[in-house]
Amino acid sequence: MTHDDQLDGLGDVADVVERARRAAPGFTNVGREPRARLLETMAGHLEGARADLVTTAAAETALDPDVLDAEVTRTADQLRMFAGVVREGSYLEATVDTAPGGDVMRWLRPLGPVAVFGASNFPFAYGVAGGDTASALAAGCPVVAKEHPSHPRICRAVLSALRAAAAAAGVSPDVIGMVSGFEAGAQLVTHPDITAVGFTGSVGGGRALFDLCAARPLPIPFYGELGSVNPAVVLPHAARSPERVIEPLVTSMLARGGQVCTKAGLVFLPDDAEDLADRLRQRMLDAPRPVLLNPSITAAYAAGTARRAALDGVEVLSGDAAATGDAAATGAGDRSPVSPVLLATTVVSLLDDANADLRDECFGPYAVLVRYRSVAELRTALAALPSSLVAGVYATDGDLPDARDVLPVLVDRAGRVVWNQPTSGLRVGWATHHGGGYPASTASGTTSVGATAIRRWLRPSALQGWPAALLPAELRDAAGGDDRGLPVRRNGRLNGPLTAREVS
Amino acid sequence: MTHDDQLDGLGDVADVVERARRAAPGFTNVGREPRARLLETMAGHLEGARADLVTTAAAETALDPDVLDAEVTRTADQLRMFAGVVREGSYLEATVDTAPGGDVMRWLRPLGPVAVFGASNFPFAYGVAGGDTASALAAGCPVVAKEHPSHPRICRAVLSALRAAAAAAGVSPDVIGMVSGFEAGAQLVTHPDITAVGFTGSVGGGRALFDLCAARPLPIPFYGELGSVNPAVVLPHAARSPERVIEPLVTSMLARGGQVCTKAGLVFLPDDAEDLADRLRQRMLDAPRPVLLNPSITAAYAAGTARRAALDGVEVLSGDAAATGDAAATGAGDRSPVSPVLLATTVVSLLDDANADLRDECFGPYAVLVRYRSVAELRTALAALPSSLVAGVYATDGDLPDARDVLPVLVDRAGRVVWNQPTSGLRVGWATHHGGGYPASTASGTTSVGATAIRRWLRPSALQGWPAALLPAELRDAAGGDDRGLPVRRNGRLNGPLTAREVS
Repeated sequence: MTHDDQLDGLGDVADVVERARRAAPGFTNVGREPRARLLETMAGHLEGARADLVTTAAAETALDPDVLDAEVTRTADQLRMFAGVVREGSYLEATVDTAPGGDVMRWLRPLGPVAVFGASNFPFAYGVAGGDTASALAAGCPVVAKEHPSHPRICRAVLSALRAAAAAAGVSPDVIGMVSGFEAGAQLVTHPDITAVGFTGSVGGGRALFDLCAARPLPIPFYGELGSVNPAVVLPHAARSPERVIEPLVTSMLARGGQVCTKAGLVFLPDDAEDLADRLRQRMLDAPRPVLLNPSITAAYAAGTARRAALDGVEVLSGDAAATGDAAATGAGDRSPVSPVLLATTVVSLLDDANADLRDECFGPYAVLVRYRSVAELRTALAALPSSLVAGVYATDGDLPDARDVLPVLVDRAGRVVWNQPTSGLRVGWATHHGGGYPASTASGTTSVGATAIRRWLRPSALQGWPAALLPAELRDAAGGDDRGLPVRRNGRLNGPLTAREVS
Repeated sequence: MTHDDQLDGLGDVADVVERARRAAPGFTNVGREPRARLLETMAGHLEGARADLVTTAAAETALDPDVLDAEVTRTADQLRMFAGVVREGSYLEATVDTAPGGDVMRWLRPLGPVAVFGASNFPFAYGVAGGDTASALAAGCPVVAKEHPSHPRICRAVLSALRAAAAAAGVSPDVIGMVSGFEAGAQLVTHPDITAVGFTGSVGGGRALFDLCAARPLPIPFYGELGSVNPAVVLPHAARSPERVIEPLVTSMLARGGQVCTKAGLVFLPDDAEDLADRLRQRMLDAPRPVLLNPSITAAYAAGTARRAALDGVEVLSGDAAATGDAAATGAGDRSPVSPVLLATTVVSLLDDANADLRDECFGPYAVLVRYRSVAELRTALAALPSSLVAGVYATDGDLPDARDVLPVLVDRAGRVVWNQPTSGLRVGWATHHGGGYPASTASGTTSVGATAIRRWLRPSALQGWPAALLPAELRDAAGGDDRGLPVRRNGRLNGPLTAREVS
């Protein structure tokens, strides 16, 4: 890793965190409207740099330029969505209990500087300007990003765009900074002035950082999205109409070369669904051979698929063993295209502890068909899986009785359960939930995507009996009764904006 | 620790957790109204057993029967408040984003069985039927309580009342169970079926359990309220009118024999406020000598006050060293009354690392006056304190400019900041916040008291494109448009109850 010492905002941990710490009080107090405008300005600057960003990203990730172009749009839209969340103001949870001796007011305030570790597979949407950063800035927390070793040039280009946007919006550019290198990551999460961590990445790396956060003298929250092998369940009636389920299934298995955290990794289907299995096999055989994101993912794919293909009770439906093995054979520096791999097994083999690998995530165009003999067996299998970010159900009206049996298990095990839609292609909005039990998330009460992701960077504060003149700016803002007034819960009743009377 | 093997609901960890696990699905699906009635029935049963509970508690804790009687009322009221929270339904955060391809619905659902460790100082309000239990049951989570070694008879009497109430309300009594003994506590938080822990107690014990939770293969949240040395700040003008500030200060210092987590442990006053210091000293000299909660608190008080009194830069204003030393001298079994102790020091001595003990909590009728020479020095001292649950400010109109300087520091460092009121005497309502940074809380984003305490036991779930007929009961309940309909956010806009159209 070489440093670009001239890049503004990139530096060593002590310096970058110190800048964030100094920027924090002003950023907390700047007010909601200027913070919303900052997010919108950042969105505009990203879009202004779109052509360069896409070119850089295509070179660094091997992802399709059209896909990356759409991701820039999604990332900008996400920043704008959080501008809307800040303006709407419910996120503050402003609450007043009146009492003769003095009202109690409760609201949420920013934690302080936070650290953000982006993912390899979405260089923009889960990167330096991604959902963690957008939600943290919306909350009022300065962000110190960790540069991703797989796409440092994108990280730097995005950092520059965000800092330029901050300056243009009249906010300290030090609300966003970056550090680089493996050691810097560990230093960052253990720095006393870092108050929380957002992370998207592997179980191994994530757990190591989680453990560091938990072991601090003053522990901090670690919001990690780690691995997720997501089940997709084809119920018996639906399995007899392959044409109805094949597109969402294939999309779920192959989106972005199988390098998404919402990939359907385990496709459950009845053991007599030969037609469906054949068609899925054919689609995998016909699928393009993607170049994967980086050499270590390429090597892990080759080794991981070969290891799983060799397990007892596992059948190779498609995938050229020699081709998948190429990358491993030629070493970690290789980024040859890889061959899609479709395996098949049974519930019994899946649950065999010797085959535990099958229940783990493997990035790349790889999936496992799991044949079940009964819905009871299916339920047993689903209940035994690790928690996941998402699960899919593919069903017709004839499957509704079985769906009633299966859905509660999936809701227990997955953060989001989709019905006859791809598991991939997360929509970003108010109802979005992208989380789940460990290892899908290290903090199952939170989401890393969607409007409520802002809650991770806030903590409650209560003020009792305070004179109106001393209330913090964000609560005083509500007193005017104008369009930017806050939704508030008053004596238990959820209302619209505060009136002047309520804070005087 | 002797077991009462005949007591229903008390058993070994494996058995009690298994009963809670089996009770969980039915309790999740029983619906909001039956769960609200359960909480109200529990409140009624506690009040029905009031006389016995108070007698038992007075014998076990040495607390005043009138104080305990009021605490039973508070505990019952807290259960009823959570019944109201469940009926109101905002806690579900029901959210709908509509889309042609299928709506996304987000809501919060219970985690599963949880563990609750109560405190020594509030045998009811922070006990087996306390805020952790009430909020967890409200959320739909069965509770396994850890019996408190300091008052096992109260714990058992409350357990019996709650289980009888559950049976009367038509709910499985296994939604509340209990385990006993030190080893059982560690087994409980590491049991695979326990999904979260609520704890109120010491930093040492709490951190040990926090570490166990973080080290689990599948980590779970640990909501701990640990130590808190709460600052009370007398600003210069207020210090010149001692009669205006003496009552809230003395109340804050001595409530419940100084055995509350909201005790004002450090009272900051100007170094020329001799009249105020004298009056506080006199009040401490005149204060009753309480019997403390248990032998280990008594011994810790004797040793802790003696050790602090001997520090360099510390002056003993009141407190008979011999008397405070008695308990320590006579051993841990002793529960003689103890002498109130008031020390005085300066900001400089307080911040001396050799005097770090002064910045730690010590239960009992003990406080430290900290003399400051300027508001700048005061700010420095406050910023250097550990995070606390609460801070108090005592001020007159003449102090408003100084208050503007000091309040932001206190809001940063304390979960609740009160103005001219005692720090003790937490009101339980919708705006309540009882939390703070570590060690006041191990989870600064949460509260252990008040309506929003329910959020700790819930996790989001998203359903995408689901047929209305398959929606979970709690969302279907909302479809009728009746009085129990849910508040819902629809396409970003926060509305009243869902209409039938929205879920069909």
